[in-house]
Amino acid sequence: MKFSSKIEKCGLSPIRKFHPCMVAAEAKGRKVHHLNIGQPDIETPEAFFDAVQNFGETVLAYAPSPGVGTYVEAVRDYYTCLGFPITCDDILATYGGSEALQIVLPCILDDGDEILVPEPYYPNYETFVNITGAVIRPIETSPEEGYRYASRERIESLINERTRAILVTNPGNPTGVVLRPEEMRILADIAREHGLFLISDEVYRELVYGGQKPGSMLEFEDAAENVVVVDSVSKRFSATGSRVGVLISRNRELMAQAMKICQGRLCAATLDQVGAAALYRTMTPEYYVNLRAEYQRRRDAVVEGLSKIPGVRFNSPEGAFYLMVTLPVDDAEKLQYFLLEEFEDHGETVMYAPGEGFYATPGKGRNEIRIAYVTNPEDLTRSIELLGLGIQAYNAKNQ
Amino acid sequence: MKFSSKIEKCGLSPIRKFHPCMVAAEAKGRKVHHLNIGQPDIETPEAFFDAVQNFGETVLAYAPSPGVGTYVEAVRDYYTCLGFPITCDDILATYGGSEALQIVLPCILDDGDEILVPEPYYPNYETFVNITGAVIRPIETSPEEGYRYASRERIESLINERTRAILVTNPGNPTGVVLRPEEMRILADIAREHGLFLISDEVYRELVYGGQKPGSMLEFEDAAENVVVVDSVSKRFSATGSRVGVLISRNRELMAQAMKICQGRLCAATLDQVGAAALYRTMTPEYYVNLRAEYQRRRDAVVEGLSKIPGVRFNSPEGAFYLMVTLPVDDAEKLQYFLLEEFEDHGETVMYAPGEGFYATPGKGRNEIRIAYVTNPEDLTRSIELLGLGIQAYNAKNQ
Repeated sequence: MKFSSKIEKCGLSPIRKFHPCMVAAEAKGRKVHHLNIGQPDIETPEAFFDAVQNFGETVLAYAPSPGVGTYVEAVRDYYTCLGFPITCDDILATYGGSEALQIVLPCILDDGDEILVPEPYYPNYETFVNITGAVIRPIETSPEEGYRYASRERIESLINERTRAILVTNPGNPTGVVLRPEEMRILADIAREHGLFLISDEVYRELVYGGQKPGSMLEFEDAAENVVVVDSVSKRFSATGSRVGVLISRNRELMAQAMKICQGRLCAATLDQVGAAALYRTMTPEYYVNLRAEYQRRRDAVVEGLSKIPGVRFNSPEGAFYLMVTLPVDDAEKLQYFLLEEFEDHGETVMYAPGEGFYATPGKGRNEIRIAYVTNPEDLTRSIELLGLGIQAYNAKNQ
Repeated sequence: MKFSSKIEKCGLSPIRKFHPCMVAAEAKGRKVHHLNIGQPDIETPEAFFDAVQNFGETVLAYAPSPGVGTYVEAVRDYYTCLGFPITCDDILATYGGSEALQIVLPCILDDGDEILVPEPYYPNYETFVNITGAVIRPIETSPEEGYRYASRERIESLINERTRAILVTNPGNPTGVVLRPEEMRILADIAREHGLFLISDEVYRELVYGGQKPGSMLEFEDAAENVVVVDSVSKRFSATGSRVGVLISRNRELMAQAMKICQGRLCAATLDQVGAAALYRTMTPEYYVNLRAEYQRRRDAVVEGLSKIPGVRFNSPEGAFYLMVTLPVDDAEKLQYFLLEEFEDHGETVMYAPGEGFYATPGKGRNEIRIAYVTNPEDLTRSIELLGLGIQAYNAKNQ
């Protein structure tokens, strides 16, 4: 039987591609260190579990389609405190940041439409866009330029009559790039001038290491009709399994369209929204300060380790908990197979996410990898050491 | 800015259309009885809340994309006990039955494709199909035939080169029709012979009142490649807010395609799956017997009440907790406005879901309504009494 042309264009997650090899390596008794996945080891604040335990209702009923009232209000207050005053009508509760994208993209993209996304990008964006029948038109970047993309000429040269939106992740996954105020301004201007939606995935907002204030595209009042923000409690509160996010926009017509899908799927999970509301309500400014400090320690451990490996090139990431690294090898996927199938040091080896899966442009990213620094600094130091030893062994074998 | 042609074709939920009028009626001090929504008042079994409270992990991490192992195994065992042996590989955990449809439909439907759905149908099917760019081709039924649709001639006459699937709800929402074994066989045969997917939404499976064994399209081994089952804990365990369902198919290629979307959105909520696993594990056969008996009492209360209203026509529903009723009025929407804006009996009035929103064919269902019998028998008896009094007052006014 036939499948849709849209699903045929989608692929399985490149980040999970090496899972079978990892299972085989572990079966041989190897300890595999993980630089490949974005699952932090930081404890979920107890406020979440407490709120869930104190739920108190005897019927676990549907939530309202736009979201549980206390959760939506908590999100509104969080943004207001950041200096971005929004109303509850600007917010729709979703199953994580993922569903926010799964809702907004079909509202604006038709078959053959184009959406601009700086590459390398989060690979699941491709699935969400392909399902609509539209295509990602990549905004190219380079490791040499530190993966920065917010130049007017570069972006405007890609806009045509089928362009509907620009989608950015800020702070960036997989690059760790944090947009500067003037870069954000350029993006907002381009969106406004060309009548495009500017979808800003800001799930890593609080994770910035340059002392700057956490930002949002909601800042630009003059682009209020264009800006759509995607957010989530997953990374901010180390609660990835709760699947609670939001879609935010002041564009009333867009929100009315999005509501059709929200009503169609009835609601996001009630109990998780109750827990998420408590997270926003009970977390103090110190919580965010400590969270940032912890990830900065992790970043510093990775950066220190990488700087000891000959031939490796990278920029110290400014935000999120990822970075792209250019390796002195021919092919990062081949190296990954080697690391899992042949290499070991004291019974240990390491995994990362090969870079090619983060690019739309064929051939790009072949000698790049994405590292997620979500474990403790000691483990990260050892993981990077293993990477260095593995590169050495791989290149020695292939000479 | 432009929205997609697909979202423009979608509408807001017809079931929620009268919400503002209800708010206004309540503001005037009216008590509004609800026959319009499918939110049962039955308590969620404590096993769900107990499992959630005993979760025990300190990090609420991503679940595996195909689902939490204990939940998937519990679903497998539930089906095996019903006589439908499936494996864990045939199961993908979803955010309720809704997401199972949001996953399978884009896997098989392209722009311009057609999917056959007996009308009247659950209105959200239209949103899920429209978003893919495909269209619902209704299999027509009539109140006179008790809304039965599983005739070979009727269905085959609608199949053309763009037909990809048949989607049925069994037991039926909004009709309460339960397919007979020979009707299920006909559907499976048609799907197999014409190379169509047969998507069977079986979330009301356990709610059958004719003493028959709860059925499933999984019964037909010879149509294993065609059959897709959608299921959920929402109605079975009165846990609509948990948003935990499954997509089931033995079609390996379909499941591989569906996995792309599952990986794209990462996972369904971890804690809710843990709770759902406990529901399946701890519910005894007596639980289902009692649940059925409770809804049967509710059905009987509605049927008894309706049979006292002159001019009303309906079939006693065989399953689920809905029925369609033909009213002796010109327009059920006008009656609904009258009931909320003008009518009252001892300060009380009643809401239902007008029938038109359940039909694709224009003009059909105008004098029909859907009733959901999800509250206690006493309340239902009073609700139906109010409906009768309201019809009388409405027709007296309009004579």
